[in-house]
Amino acid sequence: MTTANQVLSEVEYDVVGKRPVRPDGVDKVTGRAQYGADLNLAGLLHGRVLRSPHGHARIRSVDASRAVALPGVRAVVTADDLPFASMSKADLGNDYNRFKFLSDNFLASDKVLYRGHAVAAVAADNAHIAEAALSLIDVDYEALPPVIDVRAAMQDDAPLLHDDLVHTSAMGELSARPSNVASYMKFEKGDAAAGFARADAVVEREFTTASVHQGYIEPHNATAHWRADGQINIWCSTQGAFVVRANTADVLRVDVSNVRVTPMEIGGGFGGKVSFYIEPVAALLSRKAGLPVKILMSRTEVFEGSGPAPGTWMRVKMGATRDGKITAAALELAFEAGAYPGSPVMQGATCGLACYNLENATVEGYDVMVNKPKTSAYRAPGSPQAAFGVEQVVDELCLNLGLDPIAFRLNNASVEGTRKVEGPVFQRIGLVECLEAARNHDHYRTPLEGPNRGRGMAAGFWMNRGFHSSVNMTVNPDGTVNLIEGSVDIGGSRASIAQQAAETLGIAYEDIKPQVVDTDSIGYTMVTGGSRTTFATGWAAILAAEDVKQQMVERAASIWDVPADEVEYDGGVIGHKSEELSFTFRELARQLYTTGGGITGTASLDPTGEGNSFGVHLVDVEVDPDTGKTTVLRYTAIQDAGKAVHPSYVEGQIQGGAVQGIGWALNEEYYFNDSAQMVNASFLDYRMPTALDLPMIDTVIVEVANPGHPYGVRGVGEVPIVPPLPAVANAITAATGNRMTNLPITPGSILEAEWNGG
Amino acid sequence: MTTANQVLSEVEYDVVGKRPVRPDGVDKVTGRAQYGADLNLAGLLHGRVLRSPHGHARIRSVDASRAVALPGVRAVVTADDLPFASMSKADLGNDYNRFKFLSDNFLASDKVLYRGHAVAAVAADNAHIAEAALSLIDVDYEALPPVIDVRAAMQDDAPLLHDDLVHTSAMGELSARPSNVASYMKFEKGDAAAGFARADAVVEREFTTASVHQGYIEPHNATAHWRADGQINIWCSTQGAFVVRANTADVLRVDVSNVRVTPMEIGGGFGGKVSFYIEPVAALLSRKAGLPVKILMSRTEVFEGSGPAPGTWMRVKMGATRDGKITAAALELAFEAGAYPGSPVMQGATCGLACYNLENATVEGYDVMVNKPKTSAYRAPGSPQAAFGVEQVVDELCLNLGLDPIAFRLNNASVEGTRKVEGPVFQRIGLVECLEAARNHDHYRTPLEGPNRGRGMAAGFWMNRGFHSSVNMTVNPDGTVNLIEGSVDIGGSRASIAQQAAETLGIAYEDIKPQVVDTDSIGYTMVTGGSRTTFATGWAAILAAEDVKQQMVERAASIWDVPADEVEYDGGVIGHKSEELSFTFRELARQLYTTGGGITGTASLDPTGEGNSFGVHLVDVEVDPDTGKTTVLRYTAIQDAGKAVHPSYVEGQIQGGAVQGIGWALNEEYYFNDSAQMVNASFLDYRMPTALDLPMIDTVIVEVANPGHPYGVRGVGEVPIVPPLPAVANAITAATGNRMTNLPITPGSILEAEWNGG
Repeated sequence: MTTANQVLSEVEYDVVGKRPVRPDGVDKVTGRAQYGADLNLAGLLHGRVLRSPHGHARIRSVDASRAVALPGVRAVVTADDLPFASMSKADLGNDYNRFKFLSDNFLASDKVLYRGHAVAAVAADNAHIAEAALSLIDVDYEALPPVIDVRAAMQDDAPLLHDDLVHTSAMGELSARPSNVASYMKFEKGDAAAGFARADAVVEREFTTASVHQGYIEPHNATAHWRADGQINIWCSTQGAFVVRANTADVLRVDVSNVRVTPMEIGGGFGGKVSFYIEPVAALLSRKAGLPVKILMSRTEVFEGSGPAPGTWMRVKMGATRDGKITAAALELAFEAGAYPGSPVMQGATCGLACYNLENATVEGYDVMVNKPKTSAYRAPGSPQAAFGVEQVVDELCLNLGLDPIAFRLNNASVEGTRKVEGPVFQRIGLVECLEAARNHDHYRTPLEGPNRGRGMAAGFWMNRGFHSSVNMTVNPDGTVNLIEGSVDIGGSRASIAQQAAETLGIAYEDIKPQVVDTDSIGYTMVTGGSRTTFATGWAAILAAEDVKQQMVERAASIWDVPADEVEYDGGVIGHKSEELSFTFRELARQLYTTGGGITGTASLDPTGEGNSFGVHLVDVEVDPDTGKTTVLRYTAIQDAGKAVHPSYVEGQIQGGAVQGIGWALNEEYYFNDSAQMVNASFLDYRMPTALDLPMIDTVIVEVANPGHPYGVRGVGEVPIVPPLPAVANAITAATGNRMTNLPITPGSILEAEWNGG
Repeated sequence: MTTANQVLSEVEYDVVGKRPVRPDGVDKVTGRAQYGADLNLAGLLHGRVLRSPHGHARIRSVDASRAVALPGVRAVVTADDLPFASMSKADLGNDYNRFKFLSDNFLASDKVLYRGHAVAAVAADNAHIAEAALSLIDVDYEALPPVIDVRAAMQDDAPLLHDDLVHTSAMGELSARPSNVASYMKFEKGDAAAGFARADAVVEREFTTASVHQGYIEPHNATAHWRADGQINIWCSTQGAFVVRANTADVLRVDVSNVRVTPMEIGGGFGGKVSFYIEPVAALLSRKAGLPVKILMSRTEVFEGSGPAPGTWMRVKMGATRDGKITAAALELAFEAGAYPGSPVMQGATCGLACYNLENATVEGYDVMVNKPKTSAYRAPGSPQAAFGVEQVVDELCLNLGLDPIAFRLNNASVEGTRKVEGPVFQRIGLVECLEAARNHDHYRTPLEGPNRGRGMAAGFWMNRGFHSSVNMTVNPDGTVNLIEGSVDIGGSRASIAQQAAETLGIAYEDIKPQVVDTDSIGYTMVTGGSRTTFATGWAAILAAEDVKQQMVERAASIWDVPADEVEYDGGVIGHKSEELSFTFRELARQLYTTGGGITGTASLDPTGEGNSFGVHLVDVEVDPDTGKTTVLRYTAIQDAGKAVHPSYVEGQIQGGAVQGIGWALNEEYYFNDSAQMVNASFLDYRMPTALDLPMIDTVIVEVANPGHPYGVRGVGEVPIVPPLPAVANAITAATGNRMTNLPITPGSILEAEWNGG
């Protein structure tokens, strides 16, 4: 058994594809990196948030007078302090619901919609006083029946979260009456009914998945200072400082230029820190108190008050011919949005069948509100759940037809030119190469022996994102280059962006000094998420480097008194085309300040061509027939990275995604009691896999260059969480003979299935 | 008597020349601006510096073992921890002295050269432990005789500060033997001897001035964090973050790219925070302790351990004809450098006679080391002292010849085309306009009545500086613009730079959001000093705005699908030349992110054409014949600002400079005992003028546009400190009949002069 990670490269570069030390490495391993909790401004107050004990209740009144009177308390805020409180439906028009939902999730006005929903907040001289003051705020609740199951919430007689919300379909039609369904969508391609009629085998099953949390180590935190002149400064842990800027400005009804967000180092996000919860609350407290206010969420608050990945219900139906060709597929998805609209059901709908070149298919999706926290992004949002259903149905088709699951997938795989169910056509993609790498892998070629053991495999898809990024670059007199970016560094993106800059400039990686700055100090840059950062901000760095190169060429031409078009930039050397004149980058850098001033390159772009990402995972498990415990014996994750800029961090992304997917498959869930109260809101009770629980995750990086990026880069951060859910389930089916259709596949559910004969 | 400030404008603009609220105003008046002392990093240690009690001594040994053993002490450093300690003369070659002096002023190696000279430093868990640890460091000193008077230091038998330092003249010649004279310079124009021979009156006098301090309210402070990977982060109060970067890298022998300096808000500098003292020491402590270290200097440390303006000795000789034409001038200057070479005697030499169009002149200058702290810049360094001599001799010539002092100066004033003694030729300057404004001013036209009263006047010159500046600008979707600069804001430069950006873009001042950032986040930018910031960084903002405008034009052309050369940018509106197509800046800003991405403009420049600055001051005083106390009755300061970008801040600079000059004239001095120990190192004993001591300073801003700047701007921050010293002295002569040639002109010296019959 080989365990070494592999990289199957198409193209070699000087810096891109190497594995240098990350610029933020030492700070982070020595505990010196500055996170939001480390920030202590002069005069800082400490804030705490009062949260609903109910899963669903009307707020009759909030009386904070006893809290305000407590010595050391400097400010108390409720929804009455938000601009929404003083705005009418007439003021807001069509924007009413959107704005109400935005405001209410920061501080609930008329109703609380989930346990943990913020109701009020206190700023005090220290956190102990703030904590004590929370218990002095008297909230009069009228408890209402909650609904936490997505199918129950869709029933006619379900408790309504929003009394007057009528859903719109993807076609913009209003439904007849208020419901918990916030939206409905449907995609069709070909004729599914005809396809199913042609099939030799049809499998149809229902699946459910539980709410799970991203489980980032660092809780949300925010410090805000609302200055007397209306400028709001915010320091926080976020994946997108510009998103915090925009939404804070929106909910507080100020201009974006009145908000400056400084992203601190971030201790994990996985999509969950695209959303935010306390920044505007800290700002309101600061405005009242006249001092900066810091709020740190506890782990329990993170579980109960931030956005998990949605629980889902799905129905999957697929048919295939005896010779292994899929004839039709039908996918029905109902995703929990939580308290407000916005589950990733659209992404589930567009990812679920993306691995397959289908002639006939339908996809339907429902975005459904339940009494849980508003869902947030979690790595490839929506795709893992959909894959859990689809890839198990594919597995079952293969079993029923006696076909090899890799051969079957190769036979139906999406390739360049395949049109997806919802319309777009794939450019060059690497699914086939991943499947071939799986087929050729030692893992697949080594027989799995022993009782109660099974092997599973699954494919996964994520579309990846482009979005805006900006980079500024300044040349230092010692020949180094400061690279200023707006992308928060979660998984090594300072390194992967600096590598692309160094490659483009033809200088050493160590000579690039990347730095993540605040929203006032760099052009607009979207979130670190969507597998976009190394792709898009890297591209911005390439363009800024090209700008620097052009200016270096012009400067050399000016020094030599020759036309600029006679000067070339080649591999870090600026030289004249014919005469023996040349500068190294460092030599010219040293002269900049005596020959006309420094050089700053800049770029801002909104790229398309982000490529798409596919992964294929193999897993061997052993199930203990006495305890139902599943042990993962071996795990191999294969993925097309386009070009792995820093292979170690690509491997880290793949391994991390796989581990999170395994946790989702086997262990993790929000466990609610009948009152919609989460009863396992701690890392002791919400069990995530640790290093002791799993074997090393082997990786294979396949490189099918993305034609939409100068170095062929594809995003890599999300797709590795997609295959593990069905791969593990398929392996358990192989080990036990039972098809496990509900997540998590706990020891109890395995034992129960065995008792039922499976 | 009118007291209103006046602005005599040549040209009016929309934003430039107005008086908007400064962006940093609210933060500063509400006490929320973050200064270095406010910074508290996680794990922060507190540092203190052990300083020499001797004015001159050899260090036999330093034993820190008892301090290291004190619980809570985390690190102790001495000169042995600096790279210099491990380098030989052979290593350093010609750089030996420069590098030794640089290193030794941070931590003395073989000798201490002034009381307050740093010898060791401690980092501990808190400042109290650090303070206690200082007394546990045993330093064995061999006291040496000190020399603190500049003329005494020039004698053959004077104690030598540096045993082997032989001076070089301006012509690069070595003197015969070691001395305290670090350098000598001489400039000649025409034939001075022949000029004096033609004069109807000749005055020759000697003058002295005392060491004075800039007296900034905020003491020096620095926090440093030397990371395990060699990156050094520094937060400090400085006029020039890039200077701290360069010199810290130099003394620690690391690359500049290993040092990142974040300038905090600054509580005054006046030139004194161009120099720095504790940043590399904090860095060394941080490296040893592995944690960030903050050092705050006390007021006494600031007086004794930072650089004052030099004490001086001067001889001035001038001759003139009966009809008021100067025939010759000779200026001899000896300036105290303090412990290491580098007094501003060169600036004194080039400024001293600059107000006069002279055919014949000689200027000689000596840079002389004495046992005082190494001198630092203080507003127009060197010029006030030289003016103290020259403008009194001019006054005396006028009295001797019975000529009006303004008419005499107009008759001899430097104008466009005048060649200075050291060579350069003036471009368009405004000295004549200032003198005419003085002659026309109510102050000059109102007779001064009453006993013991006198009126004085004097002119002053400062060359101003250009130097490097960089600006980046990003357009926000709400139509505001982030302006990123490297110039620390001391006197309102965020406002004056934003005004120039707004004027250039044709948008509102309030839509520009200036921000001062660290050395990694902006291109090279020299100090806020030399009266250069509004001039040069303002110009960089103009160029960056032009870059934004060009990109806005190209974007509009792209949206309209027309050639870019058919689109014009006029007054904040982007329009097609012929068709009815136009965007306001705000309209186009809103569309940027959907039409190709954001826009960042950038500029870096090293301008010449900084213009020159002249001022003419009038002062009325009354001297109490019983106590010798001088009361300033009325004060008017007239100055050519080229174009006053923000007249209120120009007035503030003029008023502040005048008050500091009055303090220098009447009150301020470092008072040393025979052991070279300063005995008045507190603001109680070192008496600076307060608002209660002085009348309102009236100002007249003359605007003679500088042809070397797009809006005609000249720097204004320094020249106002030049005329007060001689103007006050001339007024006292008018009141008492005595010529006061030594600063400060204390009550005691006035009484003594009266007893001598004057």
